[in-house]
Amino acid sequence: MSIALVILAAGKGTRMESDLPKVLHKIGGAPMLHHAMQAGSSLSPERIIVVAGHGAEAVTKAAQDYDPDCTAVIQSEQNGTGHAVDQAREALADFEGDVIVLYGDTPFISHETLEDMAVARGRADIVVLGFEAADPARYGRLVAEGDRLDKIVEYKDASEAERAITLCNSGVIAADRKTLFELIGKIGNDNASGEYYLTDIVGLAREDGLTATVVTCPEAETLGINSRAELARAEAIFQTRARVELTGNGVTMQAPDTVFLSFDTTIGRDAEIEPNVVFGPGVTVESGARIRAFSHLEGAHVSRGAVVGPYARLRPGAELAEDVHVGNFVEIKNAYLGEGAKANHLSYIGDADIGEAANIGAGTITCNYDGVFKHRTEIGARAFIGSNTMLVAPVRVGDEALTGSGSVITADVPDGALALGRARQETKTGYGRKLMDMLRAKKRKLTEGAS
Amino acid sequence: MSIALVILAAGKGTRMESDLPKVLHKIGGAPMLHHAMQAGSSLSPERIIVVAGHGAEAVTKAAQDYDPDCTAVIQSEQNGTGHAVDQAREALADFEGDVIVLYGDTPFISHETLEDMAVARGRADIVVLGFEAADPARYGRLVAEGDRLDKIVEYKDASEAERAITLCNSGVIAADRKTLFELIGKIGNDNASGEYYLTDIVGLAREDGLTATVVTCPEAETLGINSRAELARAEAIFQTRARVELTGNGVTMQAPDTVFLSFDTTIGRDAEIEPNVVFGPGVTVESGARIRAFSHLEGAHVSRGAVVGPYARLRPGAELAEDVHVGNFVEIKNAYLGEGAKANHLSYIGDADIGEAANIGAGTITCNYDGVFKHRTEIGARAFIGSNTMLVAPVRVGDEALTGSGSVITADVPDGALALGRARQETKTGYGRKLMDMLRAKKRKLTEGAS
Amino acid sequence: MSIALVILAAGKGTRMESDLPKVLHKIGGAPMLHHAMQAGSSLSPERIIVVAGHGAEAVTKAAQDYDPDCTAVIQSEQNGTGHAVDQAREALADFEGDVIVLYGDTPFISHETLEDMAVARGRADIVVLGFEAADPARYGRLVAEGDRLDKIVEYKDASEAERAITLCNSGVIAADRKTLFELIGKIGNDNASGEYYLTDIVGLAREDGLTATVVTCPEAETLGINSRAELARAEAIFQTRARVELTGNGVTMQAPDTVFLSFDTTIGRDAEIEPNVVFGPGVTVESGARIRAFSHLEGAHVSRGAVVGPYARLRPGAELAEDVHVGNFVEIKNAYLGEGAKANHLSYIGDADIGEAANIGAGTITCNYDGVFKHRTEIGARAFIGSNTMLVAPVRVGDEALTGSGSVITADVPDGALALGRARQETKTGYGRKLMDMLRAKKRKLTEGAS
Repeated sequence: MSIALVILAAGKGTRMESDLPKVLHKIGGAPMLHHAMQAGSSLSPERIIVVAGHGAEAVTKAAQDYDPDCTAVIQSEQNGTGHAVDQAREALADFEGDVIVLYGDTPFISHETLEDMAVARGRADIVVLGFEAADPARYGRLVAEGDRLDKIVEYKDASEAERAITLCNSGVIAADRKTLFELIGKIGNDNASGEYYLTDIVGLAREDGLTATVVTCPEAETLGINSRAELARAEAIFQTRARVELTGNGVTMQAPDTVFLSFDTTIGRDAEIEPNVVFGPGVTVESGARIRAFSHLEGAHVSRGAVVGPYARLRPGAELAEDVHVGNFVEIKNAYLGEGAKANHLSYIGDADIGEAANIGAGTITCNYDGVFKHRTEIGARAFIGSNTMLVAPVRVGDEALTGSGSVITADVPDGALALGRARQETKTGYGRKLMDMLRAKKRKLTEGAS
Repeated sequence: MSIALVILAAGKGTRMESDLPKVLHKIGGAPMLHHAMQAGSSLSPERIIVVAGHGAEAVTKAAQDYDPDCTAVIQSEQNGTGHAVDQAREALADFEGDVIVLYGDTPFISHETLEDMAVARGRADIVVLGFEAADPARYGRLVAEGDRLDKIVEYKDASEAERAITLCNSGVIAADRKTLFELIGKIGNDNASGEYYLTDIVGLAREDGLTATVVTCPEAETLGINSRAELARAEAIFQTRARVELTGNGVTMQAPDTVFLSFDTTIGRDAEIEPNVVFGPGVTVESGARIRAFSHLEGAHVSRGAVVGPYARLRPGAELAEDVHVGNFVEIKNAYLGEGAKANHLSYIGDADIGEAANIGAGTITCNYDGVFKHRTEIGARAFIGSNTMLVAPVRVGDEALTGSGSVITADVPDGALALGRARQETKTGYGRKLMDMLRAKKRKLTEGAS
Repeated sequence: MSIALVILAAGKGTRMESDLPKVLHKIGGAPMLHHAMQAGSSLSPERIIVVAGHGAEAVTKAAQDYDPDCTAVIQSEQNGTGHAVDQAREALADFEGDVIVLYGDTPFISHETLEDMAVARGRADIVVLGFEAADPARYGRLVAEGDRLDKIVEYKDASEAERAITLCNSGVIAADRKTLFELIGKIGNDNASGEYYLTDIVGLAREDGLTATVVTCPEAETLGINSRAELARAEAIFQTRARVELTGNGVTMQAPDTVFLSFDTTIGRDAEIEPNVVFGPGVTVESGARIRAFSHLEGAHVSRGAVVGPYARLRPGAELAEDVHVGNFVEIKNAYLGEGAKANHLSYIGDADIGEAANIGAGTITCNYDGVFKHRTEIGARAFIGSNTMLVAPVRVGDEALTGSGSVITADVPDGALALGRARQETKTGYGRKLMDMLRAKKRKLTEGAS
């Protein structure tokens, strides 16, 4: 059966106190919207329609960042969930198959749950996702009899008996495209808020002699985000799950609670992650690598046996081969470090290729930016870069070449050569003490003058 | 009604296991004493008397740091709370109005509570602050009948019926100055510890036909600090509150629990604070600025659109205009960075003025200290400072001027000029390999010699 | 009474999902095995036998790292705890005294508990360590009558009445050497898993008319580690205890939960540890020192009055005298800093001796490695090292000597001298602007060419 997703992402999220559209707030480094799209991806949907409204341009861009083939439709006024889904009517006019309605602010629906819903469509015209609420509070209630869903009652319209029901409505719904839009066409807005509620389609379907059923999932999957506090809670849930999964897979973490992971962080068995490490998006750490405390990684690949940190920053394009060492106060950006290369102290390596077993001395800087262009630096295998070498790119230091500490290297250095660029040391006897004495005398005078 | 605060701050705090006077231990970056003074400040007190004892000099200094107009009086022996307040008798001899007694080790009393007490003075001669204790344990009990407070009973003197009371005494008390000191004059010390208890004034007042009443506050406000464990708990409470307040106001924090705030941290809506950021006192971050992971800020101002960190340290006097970028392993102290200026890597910028859109290369250092004096560095708008430039202050680099990487700049550079100070690169073919071979041969010899 | 420890450390720990033998996973920076050995050390054991199996070589090495005098025996097949202890039979053949069996994956047994067991041997032939389990689940049950232990029943063999017992078996056992091995010789493996269970010796002993008794300890002491999740929990327990102990002793920590301690971290009263500090093994911090946020210390000694960090990294051999300041983005390794010396910014000090009150400028690097050998740097008292000085070791800068900023120092500098090694600044008027204009023009052309 072909499946289309309709993802509602038009809300403003007033309670977020933010100019950023609600669905673009991040969990695990990715917008909530991506989490919802990712949840639906296991169904291999033929089409994805994102209903944007507030901040539609940014929302559309984010949606297409995740999946360039998705379609954004605009809901210019927010007249309820039924109205929102209706905005997808035209985009799906020629689509034959099932539509599943998801929410951009409900990031935790699992693949299994959506697969259950797709299967359940085989036994009913409409499938609603429900959950057993620990505290049903003001959720809509699902009035069901065995496998049959009779209706969805909003809390405020519910009788005492209905309020006693703990099976609640998540809002996620699946139906054949034609059925869905026919029913949506019949929804009225004769209610307190004057909005069109998607949930009304269950009652309308039953009136038409169609069948409805419920699929249930754990309450935690249905968590919707409406405030910063809820967002922080969702982030904490995400992090806890990601940490548990990694430790379960054999990653060593002394203090998992202090390690921050992204939605796509990949770490191998017996890799060691020390306390206080932050993983931005796009990081892979191979088995047996070690990421030391206070390190920060984004868009980086760390191979087996490599040691990173403490206080190392790997930026996008950092590619560390096996047994590379990147040490404290070192930044690596868009650079490849060959097997066994070392950059252990206070260095900036950007736009560079470093050969195997090269040794980059403390304080080395690749001067990659001339104010307008960025240039590359190449360092050969087993080269020895002296401390505080400035490599003015574009420049190449050959295999087994040496640079003297404190040198500014502006021209290529051939393989095996030594390059120096520094002034000879001059030493003036007694001069240091004299200088200090003069300064101190000056200070005394100033102090006396002031008093 | 004029109000005077008497803040008791003489205790040693033996259980703190510290040489620092108890009230000087910090919560949210400020001594507990400041929190107590701050609580009272909403009443716009005409006088503030701090009763110091242990570490009186340091306590007096801290009190006057907070409010230069406050008066410190010394309680040379610690003979109880009544005796402590009595030390303020002389300092308040000419004062007409109400006195409120607060405690330097009770930092969480709210403005609202103290305002309630001030108002309650309109209906009784003495106002005592009470709280409903979840576990009354050994607190003194407030025996009250409706609005009327009859007496305060110490736990050990309480009858079974009185011990069943859950309304407990916080110790905070308000009364007219004359009444207060007359009553204090009547307190005896005929008890187990031989001390003069301030709470006795309620009984004495009732004997004199005066009236007393209770104002209540949440128990959490009355938390007193007597040990390091209680201090850690109070700090945690402070941090949690401050984080909740900021997120509620629209500040983005992925992991609020890892962000440490000070009593006066100000952060605008939609500013983003990544994990593991420490705010010392005196920091303001404007809306839409971004503070990246592992940053440390004290006495700094970050404007809209600026990006700080990761691993940036802003020290007092760091003033970042809009869209400034301060990157990793960069320290800024007592320096202004103009709009759009960038210092992204491994730099120390101290005592400096940086023009708008200036680009400070990696490894740049303002050499501001000659061993005796500190000097300023000026960098013009759109200047381009090459990597590893040493700026030997006092020095000025003009607008749109350039410095070559690795230069030591000791003289002013005019607008639009290029300044270089580096030795020419010499390259010696084959020499690098030869040097290494020699060193390795030497090592081989040594190793053979050793075996 | 002479005591021998037998420590079982042969298990693979399949559930750890790790190539590292289970007992080598760390808690508080030390392998679990060390914790078990440390627990037993209070009994001053005459012999320690470690039974290794999986990863025997690494386990043996780790055991001898902790105590070079311990003996490792190999259990080549894992046939149960009785079989494991039996591997120590030969190594203890000539030993007269008590044997206590401990477990390498049970790190929290206390000194007090083991001393209780040693004492209890005076009143019974066999002493078993038990605990009252909050949830006895599938633990073996101790069937005891007053002081007399009748038998140990495995959960699966237990009657309903026996399952109601909450006194459970920890596995730790003490007996006279001869008795122990005689009984072990009688253990059968006629059970579902075909293994020899050490616990069977209690029943065998009772059959022989010997006596057995139970010593109990808190359940928390008996925590065994079988998975990464349990390891993380154990680490958290360790850290919490260590933090509580330090704060109780008067150490100031704003956020104890963010400070990571090692098994041997020593910190004095009124020392201040800011948030986010990591202590590796071998660190001592004296009273009144201050370790600022984001610092990382291993094998270092920090004296009274010293200030470290934020973002300081002290590596093994860092020895800071009183009032030393080590600041941000500074790494110290195998170096002594004399009283009042300062290295506040962006420096690497390795293999060095720094004199008292010396001032190390920002960006200073001791170039200690020539690619083959490491060399030492000496800096005299009150020397002033200018910013970005490269000290090419071996080299000595004398007392009260100065180096100019940006100098490469390759030769010794006498006391009181000034050493400079830098090129003269050349300034070319208008050239900076011209260069930038050229680059921008080039970019424009490229952009136009591309469009």
